[in-house]
Amino acid sequence: MEAFTSEKVSLKSRASTFFKELQGRMCSTIEAVDGQKRFTVDRWSYPQGGGGETRVIEHGGVFEKGGVNFSEVRGRLNEKLAQRLKVESQAFLATGISLVLHPYNPMIPTVHFNLRYLALENGDSWFGGGTDLTPYYLNEEDAVHFHSTLKRVCDKHNPSYYSRFKKWCDEYFFVKHRQEARGIGGIFFDYLRDQPERTFAFVQDVGNAFLEAYNPIVKKRMKEPWGEPERQWQLHRRGRYAEFNLVYDRGTLFGLETEGRIESILMSLPPVVQWSYNLQPEPGSREAKLVEVLGKPKDWIPL
Amino acid sequence: MEAFTSEKVSLKSRASTFFKELQGRMCSTIEAVDGQKRFTVDRWSYPQGGGGETRVIEHGGVFEKGGVNFSEVRGRLNEKLAQRLKVESQAFLATGISLVLHPYNPMIPTVHFNLRYLALENGDSWFGGGTDLTPYYLNEEDAVHFHSTLKRVCDKHNPSYYSRFKKWCDEYFFVKHRQEARGIGGIFFDYLRDQPERTFAFVQDVGNAFLEAYNPIVKKRMKEPWGEPERQWQLHRRGRYAEFNLVYDRGTLFGLETEGRIESILMSLPPVVQWSYNLQPEPGSREAKLVEVLGKPKDWIPL
Repeated sequence: MEAFTSEKVSLKSRASTFFKELQGRMCSTIEAVDGQKRFTVDRWSYPQGGGGETRVIEHGGVFEKGGVNFSEVRGRLNEKLAQRLKVESQAFLATGISLVLHPYNPMIPTVHFNLRYLALENGDSWFGGGTDLTPYYLNEEDAVHFHSTLKRVCDKHNPSYYSRFKKWCDEYFFVKHRQEARGIGGIFFDYLRDQPERTFAFVQDVGNAFLEAYNPIVKKRMKEPWGEPERQWQLHRRGRYAEFNLVYDRGTLFGLETEGRIESILMSLPPVVQWSYNLQPEPGSREAKLVEVLGKPKDWIPL
Repeated sequence: MEAFTSEKVSLKSRASTFFKELQGRMCSTIEAVDGQKRFTVDRWSYPQGGGGETRVIEHGGVFEKGGVNFSEVRGRLNEKLAQRLKVESQAFLATGISLVLHPYNPMIPTVHFNLRYLALENGDSWFGGGTDLTPYYLNEEDAVHFHSTLKRVCDKHNPSYYSRFKKWCDEYFFVKHRQEARGIGGIFFDYLRDQPERTFAFVQDVGNAFLEAYNPIVKKRMKEPWGEPERQWQLHRRGRYAEFNLVYDRGTLFGLETEGRIESILMSLPPVVQWSYNLQPEPGSREAKLVEVLGKPKDWIPL
């Protein structure tokens, strides 16, 4: 591992410390909101070096399933992965945090969040990450709040970030075979190579802002009533979530191909999912309104 | 379409007639066994030419979800598909039938069945197909019955078929990231190019034998008692089924990439699925016994 400069090793290490500490803060806040269950902690090692900690909450008061995964690993890119990154097989260092929350109440959106840092032996290194919201029922004010919070963080660092990363998110979380977005977006960024210290500051701000972006939505919606029809719709929409993660998600496929820790990779899958044949929402219904919005990514904040 | 010889067109047409007629027979038998629901019939056209008929049964007396899909289409291979088949983009003719049945009772295995014929403008053409069983609880006698029925059909045509196609099935229906088989196998074959008339006779025999292979298992198991723990296990195992179909199944990915009819392609997905974090069956339990068998493909018939 002598191939990595001390700057890289130090940045990786500071990023890792931040991600680990963020995991703790996120879990405490989520437990406080949930009110009934606590996260179980599952530590694991990566065969080539390093390891991680997967924290999972299931059958809580608010969250049906949620996971916050931290990892800090090192190893050698296998052939498949090296090909994908268009480089020779070589040593790498990686650290990251990822979160997925699947609430019971269909009025609360599912949320995904991820930050990561990767360094290659050849000298290349970058940050990536983002967060996006997947509602079952659309509340425009929630979408505006989520996006505004992210825009504020982006604007603090670079006036072009929000519009670039919002667009990237819409393009990335797209279920091609359904020709619809997975949700109402957020921000997504990858391969941020320049000015690593400034980028790390941005990445930390995104991490710190996540709860501010999502928590108020949970608190506002968790008391809203729902019944069997809303549950059925939620289970149906979760099918699309599973389709995206298993067919398209780079992180998931990357993990499966590199023989990562399967349970930590697939913790993002929804707890219960339903696939009915050719289910179509009734024209004019709230369900149809969601599908309409997913068909064409929308600007939630006038730019 | 003048590029296809009259022999090819005739074979495609006879295969198509057989598949269509088989679909009808299968659906009648399944309805009779189910006793409560009938298939709904959904006809669709393929944008480039031809079309199909998807028949679906949901929330029946025995079957929670089942589909029997027939198609007869023509068109031009798109780039992705041509690449996969290692040929130039060109005209094709295809016809096929596929079936998936997901019973309620976890004592009844899920079953998959498929037969297809494909001809390319360049003169190449082949049959493919097979059938395989995915139990939630293992009854060795069911596995032996299923495999024996298939072996009898294979042996009638070629003494090497059963062992070749059984192995092919074990290799194909393998969930790599879990390092386990999807189920207890059956037969799988593809690219059968030689002696098309004799192969068509074999394909018809496989089609005719399917109900004989599966039906007695349904009838034997449908009265067996089950409760919440068995249901939970079934939903968990169905997660693996969804993982296989979305991550690995050539037919599914082929369909998604060629912009086939999505609902007909994804009709194979289970009706309800559950993903719990790191669920492990209790050592020594019936659930553990199934997982053990899936870890290492077994010869159900002494060869």
